[in-house]
Amino acid sequence: MKVISETEAAGVIERRFDVQVSDQTVPGILWAPVGATGSRPLLLLGHGGSLHKRFEGLVRFAHRMVRNHGYAAVAIDAPGHGERIDEAQHARMREQFKDGFPLSAEQLTQWLLATIPGAVAEWKATLDAVQALDYVGQGKVGYFGLSMGATLGIPFVAAEPRVTAAIFGLAGLGTDERAFGAAARSLTLPILFIFQLHDEVVPAELGLGLFRAFGSSTKTMHINPGKHIAIPPFEVDEYELFLVRHLSR
Amino acid sequence: MKVISETEAAGVIERRFDVQVSDQTVPGILWAPVGATGSRPLLLLGHGGSLHKRFEGLVRFAHRMVRNHGYAAVAIDAPGHGERIDEAQHARMREQFKDGFPLSAEQLTQWLLATIPGAVAEWKATLDAVQALDYVGQGKVGYFGLSMGATLGIPFVAAEPRVTAAIFGLAGLGTDERAFGAAARSLTLPILFIFQLHDEVVPAELGLGLFRAFGSSTKTMHINPGKHIAIPPFEVDEYELFLVRHLSR
Repeated sequence: MKVISETEAAGVIERRFDVQVSDQTVPGILWAPVGATGSRPLLLLGHGGSLHKRFEGLVRFAHRMVRNHGYAAVAIDAPGHGERIDEAQHARMREQFKDGFPLSAEQLTQWLLATIPGAVAEWKATLDAVQALDYVGQGKVGYFGLSMGATLGIPFVAAEPRVTAAIFGLAGLGTDERAFGAAARSLTLPILFIFQLHDEVVPAELGLGLFRAFGSSTKTMHINPGKHIAIPPFEVDEYELFLVRHLSR
Repeated sequence: MKVISETEAAGVIERRFDVQVSDQTVPGILWAPVGATGSRPLLLLGHGGSLHKRFEGLVRFAHRMVRNHGYAAVAIDAPGHGERIDEAQHARMREQFKDGFPLSAEQLTQWLLATIPGAVAEWKATLDAVQALDYVGQGKVGYFGLSMGATLGIPFVAAEPRVTAAIFGLAGLGTDERAFGAAARSLTLPILFIFQLHDEVVPAELGLGLFRAFGSSTKTMHINPGKHIAIPPFEVDEYELFLVRHLSR
């Protein structure tokens, strides 16, 4: 783990780092309380499709958990996202996404099958690197990821016993059963699952299907009206409450 | 409104009262902070089928809102429940409910159609009586009711503009569309809707149908695994958070 830069604001220190995973350089951000020493709960933040590690919703959530509860939080760019692609590739992605989600169900499943192994390895390597820091240590670990952050996060969490509570959302189980259905069924950790009633990318019935599939006995689905990216702001209070319930006690 | 008795415990005063509504004497309980003066938010608590105004879940929830937030709370016996029937009728009801919910969908719809007008009038009269007390007054009003507390509560809340936030749950929209479908569609207040994934009385699809029917733009459905009466205890934290968000600010 190589620290690239360091900034500080409102009691939160932010370290931009790279982790090397096989031939991939994975760019990440680690947030922690200024002057932190010793182990603490750690929140892993997986971003959505076409977004990146510095998406403002993730940054705000990270700051909140650091400031209110002394957590550490980390986000990395997923394969093919953020600093892992150049400006021409970003322009192509913006063009593809401008009229909504561009992939067919079958194309998405193929992309997930190709991408999941690397994404899982990268999160594991990031977790190893971050937990080796004395101011993060071996505290409890939670995962947060909506949309692509869920479809890549579910196989990661299924493969990673150190994660003991997860917030997923904006995903369903249809064609992509082949990509992460078995992983979803194998989960036993507490899950908060966030869904939008009028999601134009994932029909509510597929969302309910994914929620049913989770093997966990402690799982809650929250459904609000509105489209894919219109989760009401008060749900962030729920994320916080859920993490504190499972990681702080 | 006639106060029958008064007891006090842990900062909460409990007044057992009767309200007369046409030919019906409706027994109720009012909880408030000891020594309360002036207006405050008021929580109306509707109990489930075969239960009564002193069901322990309601009493605990009332005490919590009174002690933590200075609310007043009130519960009344629904038609055909609690102190409104004698011991022989209670024994018959226990016998009917001992193997699960005893009514067919059509029988339930008929019972609701016959019961809703009286239940709505009784809640309105109770609200009038309670708001006339100087230590309750004209503060914001919320309603809580699961199962029968929802199927009777939805028409009441639809008819009562003083109620500005509601928690419903363990109900669905099927045959009983005729009884409260129009009322559900007419609602515009913030709603928290609680549902159980393996509810043996109401299938999840009918629960999702009722949630879809609510006309409110601010509404959240929480789904947990388990049967009808197995809502996990942490959802009470959610009831509290929801009421405080909408009634205290």
